[in-house]
Amino acid sequence: MDDKIKYVVGVDLGGTKIYAAVIDKKGKIYGSARVKTRAEEGFNAVIDRLFDCIMQAVNNSKITLAEIGAVGLGSPGPLDLEEGKIIETPNLGWKDAPLKARLEKTIKKPVRVDNDGNVGLLGEYAYGAGHGAKHMVGLFIGTGVGGGVIIDGKLLHGFNENAGELGHMILDPNGPRCGCGNHGCLEAFSGRLAIEKQIRIAEINGVPTKIFKKMKKKSDKIRSGILAKGYLEKDPAVTAAIERSATYVGYGVASLLNIFNPEVVVLGGGVVEAIGGEYVKIVRKVAIENAFAIASRNVRIIAAELKDDSAILGASFLAWQAIEDLNHSNIL
Amino acid sequence: MDDKIKYVVGVDLGGTKIYAAVIDKKGKIYGSARVKTRAEEGFNAVIDRLFDCIMQAVNNSKITLAEIGAVGLGSPGPLDLEEGKIIETPNLGWKDAPLKARLEKTIKKPVRVDNDGNVGLLGEYAYGAGHGAKHMVGLFIGTGVGGGVIIDGKLLHGFNENAGELGHMILDPNGPRCGCGNHGCLEAFSGRLAIEKQIRIAEINGVPTKIFKKMKKKSDKIRSGILAKGYLEKDPAVTAAIERSATYVGYGVASLLNIFNPEVVVLGGGVVEAIGGEYVKIVRKVAIENAFAIASRNVRIIAAELKDDSAILGASFLAWQAIEDLNHSNIL
Repeated sequence: MDDKIKYVVGVDLGGTKIYAAVIDKKGKIYGSARVKTRAEEGFNAVIDRLFDCIMQAVNNSKITLAEIGAVGLGSPGPLDLEEGKIIETPNLGWKDAPLKARLEKTIKKPVRVDNDGNVGLLGEYAYGAGHGAKHMVGLFIGTGVGGGVIIDGKLLHGFNENAGELGHMILDPNGPRCGCGNHGCLEAFSGRLAIEKQIRIAEINGVPTKIFKKMKKKSDKIRSGILAKGYLEKDPAVTAAIERSATYVGYGVASLLNIFNPEVVVLGGGVVEAIGGEYVKIVRKVAIENAFAIASRNVRIIAAELKDDSAILGASFLAWQAIEDLNHSNIL
Repeated sequence: MDDKIKYVVGVDLGGTKIYAAVIDKKGKIYGSARVKTRAEEGFNAVIDRLFDCIMQAVNNSKITLAEIGAVGLGSPGPLDLEEGKIIETPNLGWKDAPLKARLEKTIKKPVRVDNDGNVGLLGEYAYGAGHGAKHMVGLFIGTGVGGGVIIDGKLLHGFNENAGELGHMILDPNGPRCGCGNHGCLEAFSGRLAIEKQIRIAEINGVPTKIFKKMKKKSDKIRSGILAKGYLEKDPAVTAAIERSATYVGYGVASLLNIFNPEVVVLGGGVVEAIGGEYVKIVRKVAIENAFAIASRNVRIIAAELKDDSAILGASFLAWQAIEDLNHSNIL
C-alpha cells in the first residue's frame, strides 16, 4: 500500500440508515452521505445501496475514489471478523452475509468490519472523549444497552469475537426480564424500553405524570426527546425512571471499574445524549461509591462527544488499521 | 542475559506462609521450601525469611544459585508493578514496601512481582487447566473471592494495575453486605465467610444440621474440609449454602462470559477444591443458562488443576517473562 494515502471511508451500517463519510487520519470529514438501509429488500440490494452511499460521500467530498485507501465499516453483529461476515443479526434479518468480500469486490479497496458498539467506542477512543486513554470502557444507553472495551489501545474481541456485551451483566438475578430472555441484566434496568416500562407502571400506580400528553398516542413509544422534556420539567414519573436507569448504570460501572480498572468510561447513546450531564452525574456518583478506591482513582466517567459521528469515525480508524497492517505485511 | 538459563525461582508470599521452588521452563519443580511469613515482625524480617526460603529451595534442588536466572513472586496487593512495591495490604499490614528492590539487592537476580490472584491464574494458564487457551478468566472461591483475567495471552492489569477484582462484581445492589463495605458483591454471596453465615442463619431458622458437631467449638470458623464433609453427607443447611454459593458464582460467570467471551473459565480456591466437581457443575449450568449462546460457545468452565502450586508456577512464568524482556532489551 501507498504510504501517502490521505483518505479513507468510514461507514455506519444501521438497521434504518447507512451513513458514509470520507475522512482523513485526523478525523476530519470531507464529505458524507446517508441512505435508507431497507434490509427487507435483501443483502444484495443493500450492498448496492452501500456502494451508492459511499460513492455519494466521495462525490460530496471533491476527492476521487482513487485517492481512498480503504473502507471501514460498523455493522450490527454477531460478526465473523476475519471473514468480515455477518453471522446473524435480528436487526437486518440476514444470516452468513459476506459483507467484506462483496464490498471489496465492488469497490476494489481493502474493507475491514467490526460490530457497531466496538466501532462507536473506537471513534470516541481515537477522536472523541478518549483523549489518549489506552484503557476505556464504553456503555451506550439507547433502546437497549450496548458496550465495548479497549485494553491497551486494542478492542477486546474475545475467543469467538463476541466480547463486550456489557449491557448483559447481571445486576439482579431476580430482577426484571430482559430482551435477551434472562433476568436482571443492566439493559433490563436502564435501556429506553426499561425506562418506558417504569413510567407506564408508575402511571398505573398513580404517580403524577404529564408525559403522555406530549405524545400523539399514549401507545406510541416514548422517545428520548420526550423523556428529556419530562426530565427537564421534573415530571415525577419520568424523573424516577431516569434516576433508576442512571443508578443501575452506576452499579454496572462500579463492577466494570473493579473488573477493568479503566482510565476512561464513556457514556453514550440516545438516553445519555437526551438527558445529558445530570445523567452522567448520577452514574459517576453511584459508580465511585460502589467501586474500590484504587480501581476508580483518577478514572474519568464522561459523556461521549461524537454523537452520530462516532461510528463513521471509528470505522475510519478501522480502515487506517487495515492500511497499516497491509503496509506491515508488505515489509515482512 | 544468558539464553541458556534453565532454572528460575517462583515464590508465593502469603499471609501465613512463604512457599518457594526452583522450576524449569516446562514447570518441573526441582526443589521447594516453606517458611512462616510472620508479617507482624515487619518488612525487613520477612525479606530475610523470604531470602532464606529461596535458599532452602535452591539447596533442596541440588542446583546452584548461580544457575538461577530470575525470581518471580506473587504477593497480596494492591501493588505498584513497575516498582515492584506493595502499596498497601491488609493481609501483611505493610505500606509502600519495596519488595522487588530489596529482594534484588539481596539475591542479585532480576525479580518480578504481580498480585497473588494474577499469579495463580498465570500458573493455570501456563502449566494447568489453561492448556493453550489465550483468553482466560479465573475465579478463586476461598475465604473471599479473588480473580484474574488473561486476554490474548497477557494478564489484564488496567490503568492503575488493579484490574481483575472479579469478586466485587455487583450481583444485587440490595444484597448482603460485603467485606469491602458495599452490598451484594459476588464475594458476599459465594465466599467461605458468606457460606458460613448462611449455615448459621439456617440453623437459627430451624434447618436441620449436624455440622457444628464436627467442630471443636461452635464459634470456630467453619473450614472448607468441614463444609466438604457436610456436603457429602447431604447436610441440609450445608447443601443449601453451598448450592447458593455456586449458583451466584454461576451468575457471575454468565456476566463474565458476556463481557470477556473467554475460552476457559478456571474455578479454584479452597471452597472449589473441597467440594469439587459438583460445585463446578452447578456453576457451569447456571452460567450457560444466563449467558448469550455465542458468548459461551465452546467455552470450558473447569476446576483449577495446580492447587497449592498454582502461585509458585505462575510466579516462575513471571520470572521467565522477565528474562525474555531483558534478552529483548539487550538486542535492541
